[in-house]
Amino acid sequence: MISEEVLKGMFQPRTTPWRTSITKVEPNRLVTQGYPQEELIGNISFPEMIHLLIKGVLPTKNQEKMLQAILVSFCDHGVTPPSTQSARLMASAGSSVNACLAGGILAFGENHAGAIELSMKMLQEGIILSKDNGLSLDETAQQLLDYFTNNGRKIPGFGHRYHDQDPRAPRLIELSREYDCFNEHTELAMELQGLLQERKGINMNIDGANAALLSDMGFNWRVGCGLFIVGRVPGLLAHVQEEKTREQPFRKLLNVDEMSPGNDLVNSF
Amino acid sequence: MISEEVLKGMFQPRTTPWRTSITKVEPNRLVTQGYPQEELIGNISFPEMIHLLIKGVLPTKNQEKMLQAILVSFCDHGVTPPSTQSARLMASAGSSVNACLAGGILAFGENHAGAIELSMKMLQEGIILSKDNGLSLDETAQQLLDYFTNNGRKIPGFGHRYHDQDPRAPRLIELSREYDCFNEHTELAMELQGLLQERKGINMNIDGANAALLSDMGFNWRVGCGLFIVGRVPGLLAHVQEEKTREQPFRKLLNVDEMSPGNDLVNSF
Amino acid sequence: MISEEVLKGMFQPRTTPWRTSITKVEPNRLVTQGYPQEELIGNISFPEMIHLLIKGVLPTKNQEKMLQAILVSFCDHGVTPPSTQSARLMASAGSSVNACLAGGILAFGENHAGAIELSMKMLQEGIILSKDNGLSLDETAQQLLDYFTNNGRKIPGFGHRYHDQDPRAPRLIELSREYDCFNEHTELAMELQGLLQERKGINMNIDGANAALLSDMGFNWRVGCGLFIVGRVPGLLAHVQEEKTREQPFRKLLNVDEMSPGNDLVNSF
Amino acid sequence: MISEEVLKGMFQPRTTPWRTSITKVEPNRLVTQGYPQEELIGNISFPEMIHLLIKGVLPTKNQEKMLQAILVSFCDHGVTPPSTQSARLMASAGSSVNACLAGGILAFGENHAGAIELSMKMLQEGIILSKDNGLSLDETAQQLLDYFTNNGRKIPGFGHRYHDQDPRAPRLIELSREYDCFNEHTELAMELQGLLQERKGINMNIDGANAALLSDMGFNWRVGCGLFIVGRVPGLLAHVQEEKTREQPFRKLLNVDEMSPGNDLVNSF
Repeated sequence: MISEEVLKGMFQPRTTPWRTSITKVEPNRLVTQGYPQEELIGNISFPEMIHLLIKGVLPTKNQEKMLQAILVSFCDHGVTPPSTQSARLMASAGSSVNACLAGGILAFGENHAGAIELSMKMLQEGIILSKDNGLSLDETAQQLLDYFTNNGRKIPGFGHRYHDQDPRAPRLIELSREYDCFNEHTELAMELQGLLQERKGINMNIDGANAALLSDMGFNWRVGCGLFIVGRVPGLLAHVQEEKTREQPFRKLLNVDEMSPGNDLVNSF
Repeated sequence: MISEEVLKGMFQPRTTPWRTSITKVEPNRLVTQGYPQEELIGNISFPEMIHLLIKGVLPTKNQEKMLQAILVSFCDHGVTPPSTQSARLMASAGSSVNACLAGGILAFGENHAGAIELSMKMLQEGIILSKDNGLSLDETAQQLLDYFTNNGRKIPGFGHRYHDQDPRAPRLIELSREYDCFNEHTELAMELQGLLQERKGINMNIDGANAALLSDMGFNWRVGCGLFIVGRVPGLLAHVQEEKTREQPFRKLLNVDEMSPGNDLVNSF
Repeated sequence: MISEEVLKGMFQPRTTPWRTSITKVEPNRLVTQGYPQEELIGNISFPEMIHLLIKGVLPTKNQEKMLQAILVSFCDHGVTPPSTQSARLMASAGSSVNACLAGGILAFGENHAGAIELSMKMLQEGIILSKDNGLSLDETAQQLLDYFTNNGRKIPGFGHRYHDQDPRAPRLIELSREYDCFNEHTELAMELQGLLQERKGINMNIDGANAALLSDMGFNWRVGCGLFIVGRVPGLLAHVQEEKTREQPFRKLLNVDEMSPGNDLVNSF
Repeated sequence: MISEEVLKGMFQPRTTPWRTSITKVEPNRLVTQGYPQEELIGNISFPEMIHLLIKGVLPTKNQEKMLQAILVSFCDHGVTPPSTQSARLMASAGSSVNACLAGGILAFGENHAGAIELSMKMLQEGIILSKDNGLSLDETAQQLLDYFTNNGRKIPGFGHRYHDQDPRAPRLIELSREYDCFNEHTELAMELQGLLQERKGINMNIDGANAALLSDMGFNWRVGCGLFIVGRVPGLLAHVQEEKTREQPFRKLLNVDEMSPGNDLVNSF
């Protein structure tokens, strides 16, 4: 039985003590992760800010360089990804820029950007498995490969439908050695690549390389897709802009006959 | 200068007296537009509920029949609309059902579902113009047509890129006479059609017919796209479901080669 | 090694044989699930159309009535749900109607509309369990309850944070008997309610009732959230409309001080 | 009359010659704006890549620094913006990370991120006005101010509901002088600030400063909101992550009573 007092409490407007530890907002003062924003602006790079927001601390100089390279590598893959196609479809339908970007992001489903998180999860769990059981990284790679193969699943982060050698992956690995960011997760990924090359002629792709490097930088696998989005939004924006300014909209190329019996500016479905 | 007291007030958690006149929520009691929900359930139809929510009152029996027909007419147009293509792209990328539906809705831009609102606005302003200036409806139609033509714009709600006679429009008009819902806005739309048929062989399309009928039912033009969405969401859901259960995903048909060099379950971009 | 021919094939524009069995589109002819649309318009109700789109066949008269009641029951729950709050936040930020509706739908996450699908899944798997193991429905209910309790999970579809007796649930059950739509899934749900009332004083909520009834009507649990969205979009539209026309925007109530030092029409963050 | 041949053509699957000048995709080769991606990775910064994608060319060293600072300045404003609130609501409802980010972006409506585009448009049109009519920048500022005031509109980019001196704006202006990026649009914005300080004690806010600087860097006003989103997505991701890992979800703080009569893990609406 609910008392009258409780009832009143339940449906009264209530105080909302919103709390966040990310940014403290006061009049004329904004403090993010402990730093006044006017001190961050002009003193740190955008990737340093991204690291600060997500990890709570500033990266080392080498980590910053690595993150810079990772974010650049996410930039664009032409009109082949469903996210780009969705954003362009919406742009050609006349939706606003923010709606087009949101729409593109909604297409980062399990089969699209999902691979990077799956790959991070596999590598992070692989390292735990290796430590807990005293396995070497090549033994761990072998076990992961067996597990996925026995369950009829592909190894996330390896193989690509357009590229048999994704040009971005080896470049990222090379840089990770230069920036001293090559550690156990990337080593495990290299072991996996070795086995997969031998057995199936398959190489690491961009997702696998970034999954390994982000894991070595200490990012939790649950932010993998989010970081991919951070890196890909500028590319989506470029596509939306291109679509909105071109004469022949993308959509027309997709599904329209040349010979329209009537109204062709305002379409009806 | 802000006093300390004001400062405190500005950044304290504050009470949020959310108010809505749509539904009153109390423990064990939900009252929508004045009616307890348990009395509405089983006693009114879904279109009656839609009318009640948007207009604040229940429709007459004839208005209910008209709205029923309008909502049915919005149902689906195969895979040609950008909204359906977007929703299917997302479904094939592995996004969740609600993300796919949201994505489809984001493609209802100006050039897609925009036509129904533009058409409603044109007809509603046309009727005001007619009354304010003592113009007959055929004079009004003539003025509207001149205005759009002189500004290089197509008349929203007329002509269709697939159909020279959209089969849904005349059926809706026929029903509006039967249900006694044919009034001034629809009459104005018929005048426009008469002029456009004569000049360009163009007929009213689904958007034009529904724009006229919804206007005659007293709906503000600003809810036109929203009502289209209400009627189209079930169709989008059917497409998402079909996409998620088919062997050959829509996306593969869009952009994938048959011969994938490696991994084909988890794709990378 | 990829041959030159394959390479060419991979990057050429390719034919897109889009197929759907939902609607066949031909000039001046639209055939949905086998019926010409102009014959459906005016002859079937909106819920019949929804059934036809999702299930592929028209419902019986009683099923139509049941679906009518279910869709009405989804209508609105005031400003308490995160979906409504999100849609209103966006409306007050000046986003377009379709963006607001899409945003509302994106808030139907696991903890919100997820319950209806979980409940449908539980009941549908419960019935299979019962048949496969020759269990009575009260034995099945007992097993389900033990399973959820032992795993520290709440039973989806039972209990409500605002209502100890959700007024919509018993009304829907009552109607299901009247419409001859009360079958094994609903019976199992009633058994669960019996056990939960006894043990914890918890009753079936709207999600539990609709999960049971939709399961008895043969809907796959994977469309549960989608059907909830179909029923809730009109309510979201009503809230967006209310928000866009009110003087005091919802957002202001949420987070704004009365005493704005300067510009208050165009806000900055 | 449509001939049979045309009919066939209209409804046959058709070739989709997708074209983009942003990235050329070939097997094992990705060329963005003329540069192979493996050469960009490790050699340019993320802001340089953003500039390359949107403007088609690499920025100068000073422009890169300016863009770096601008992107950092967009980072976060705590839980006050509707975009952050929406993203957190969705996170607490259990939506996926990409759905939460998309939802946040959908709240960048006219009244929220709209200010930056309006401000860019005003400044860019102001400079054209100034040149076309041989007006000095202070005369132009005067005319703009009169225009907005006479139309009952606030000047976009000036004044802030939390800050009477937005700490980010003067810092950005200071840097623009250091990086030699202070040009006519920023000068015009300073003139406007002078007039507004005098008349109403209002200062430039973050939107005004970035609008001026992005205009001086040659960005079209139509990408203003898009660039704000690029800079804000990392902050949204941080909030989503915080929300998903906190014990007490944001949503609960918004609308839930402490005393829930039953089920509190799975909620029902």
